[in-house]
Amino acid sequence: MTLNLVPFVSVDAMMRLVHRIGIETVLRDLTAEIEADFRRWPEFDKTPRIASHSDVGVIELMPTSDGQTYGFKYVNGHPSNMKRGLQTVTAFGLLADVATGYPVLLSEMTILTALRTAATSAMAAKWLAPAGADCMALIGNGAQAEFQALAFRAICGLREVRLYDIDPAATEKCARNLAGSGLKVIFCRTAEEAILGAGIITTVTADKNHATILNDNMVGNGVHINGVGGDCPGKTELAQPILHRADIFTEYTPQTRIEGEIQQLDPNHPVTELWEVIAGRAPGRTHPTQVTLFDSVGFAIEDFAALRYVLARLPETGLGQMLDMIADPDDPRDLYGMLMRAA
Amino acid sequence: MTLNLVPFVSVDAMMRLVHRIGIETVLRDLTAEIEADFRRWPEFDKTPRIASHSDVGVIELMPTSDGQTYGFKYVNGHPSNMKRGLQTVTAFGLLADVATGYPVLLSEMTILTALRTAATSAMAAKWLAPAGADCMALIGNGAQAEFQALAFRAICGLREVRLYDIDPAATEKCARNLAGSGLKVIFCRTAEEAILGAGIITTVTADKNHATILNDNMVGNGVHINGVGGDCPGKTELAQPILHRADIFTEYTPQTRIEGEIQQLDPNHPVTELWEVIAGRAPGRTHPTQVTLFDSVGFAIEDFAALRYVLARLPETGLGQMLDMIADPDDPRDLYGMLMRAA
Repeated sequence: MTLNLVPFVSVDAMMRLVHRIGIETVLRDLTAEIEADFRRWPEFDKTPRIASHSDVGVIELMPTSDGQTYGFKYVNGHPSNMKRGLQTVTAFGLLADVATGYPVLLSEMTILTALRTAATSAMAAKWLAPAGADCMALIGNGAQAEFQALAFRAICGLREVRLYDIDPAATEKCARNLAGSGLKVIFCRTAEEAILGAGIITTVTADKNHATILNDNMVGNGVHINGVGGDCPGKTELAQPILHRADIFTEYTPQTRIEGEIQQLDPNHPVTELWEVIAGRAPGRTHPTQVTLFDSVGFAIEDFAALRYVLARLPETGLGQMLDMIADPDDPRDLYGMLMRAA
Repeated sequence: MTLNLVPFVSVDAMMRLVHRIGIETVLRDLTAEIEADFRRWPEFDKTPRIASHSDVGVIELMPTSDGQTYGFKYVNGHPSNMKRGLQTVTAFGLLADVATGYPVLLSEMTILTALRTAATSAMAAKWLAPAGADCMALIGNGAQAEFQALAFRAICGLREVRLYDIDPAATEKCARNLAGSGLKVIFCRTAEEAILGAGIITTVTADKNHATILNDNMVGNGVHINGVGGDCPGKTELAQPILHRADIFTEYTPQTRIEGEIQQLDPNHPVTELWEVIAGRAPGRTHPTQVTLFDSVGFAIEDFAALRYVLARLPETGLGQMLDMIADPDDPRDLYGMLMRAA
């Protein structure tokens, strides 16, 4: 019996796993896993994530279950962390067996969240972006930026990425990291320059307040907007008129109403859940001049899919470190006896 | 910088910590810590725990924060686990720094939950039990039983414990473990025999359905009931008439209405939160013939206090194992660069 031992995937192990498989393969695999779980969306227990807000950030728990496996992620969002040399977003997650409640995987998820967020963005664009769109504006060049660019290359055939950040050092970092990726990388001095010729606009900025990263004039007909950065009450990126022109697609709408761009709109404003498009229950893009918006905030099912992918890779990669996490006395009623005999 | 490393307290480390300090000292310390946090109850963010129910059990997340430190516990409850040789309840928990969102402690909590639950029960009895009560009926002799008996000895001066379980093997196990504890241990064949002369009645059974562990006739005037096992929707232990005779004390009432004995009552039935008694805002026991009931379901603040106690002991005990849990690139915006350089 080794039920007391739970495999743990450290940051180092996650990096080795990504390199062993190859990052573009990982992104494609994650897209396929997330898409498969979106297709069976009604099977999942769903709840808006449980947020604990403070003046400087938020700590959230994101649980879900498909009746067989339970998963949750712990994730924080602290925009001011960056100035202190810390990550804005860090995360870890867990899977457990619903039948017993025993954990089966503990994993770092800072890197995995970056990968699954990018995979989800690219998956949505696959269903919503205009046909043949191969140029993307990428506004916000922080920790998530390169993952977005690579996922769109691997899943959507992106060829050109146009980078802009209010801090040119971030754009330089991003451009440097994407050199040799196979993408044509354009360093832009303004958001207006970044959107030139882009069929897809990704916004992924971190400030925790109502910002206007895109105003209405900047969004031409036919564009797909991948809105990633607005993911918290009071944190939005898009001018409201854009939302009235766009057809809006969400992950789990009750959560998006609280956290997404649509917190700016009437709570009855019509939206379509992305899983409905993937499952063939609702149309995605219906005409070339339509503005589509994926109002992404990140949902627990994406983490669930990503954690299951990691768990399935452990036997072949041997990267789990076994943690003595679960007390497992020989007689389950004799927890106290186990404790006393340990003396 | 070692912010990427999070100290982990394994099951083995927790057992060594308990033995190094001594279990009765740990129980007394935990009671003091929990009492101190109950006294400052209004400072905490509180929410009913987030439960994911299945046919066979429940998996729950229990978060709270005092504005400085955030904590949560993962805990399952699977009554049928015992038949499969598994623990009914397993748990682990985490503390994080609210200012940054970075975790500062990961710990096993199967043992720690047993300790904190017992400490909380004894704390409540200290405020509510009849003066001089030194004999307790302990109905349900599973994994939690010995911890309850020891906590009442350490905190309330218990001298005699009267054991009963529907399975005599459980009672034998409990009696064997308590031999040499300094308690007079009486092996009872019925619940009626167990309650004879007991000023305190503790019920701590595990079945997930409406049971009647105590009926009205069994509860004499002046008794304090410590109801521990009813802690889930549909899971109660006490006959409803007892609830109408008793003055009822709760942890966090919105959660107890869902999970506790009082789920059997009108949602407006008056109850007193235990913290109000401890903080001097409400009376506890007011007369010797009063029946008091601590309708215990377990609340996040108890886990928070217990985790903080463990974290504070780590420097002196050296028992934390450092886990590489948080990705921490030199440039916080360069998560991708860190990943690529790891190749």
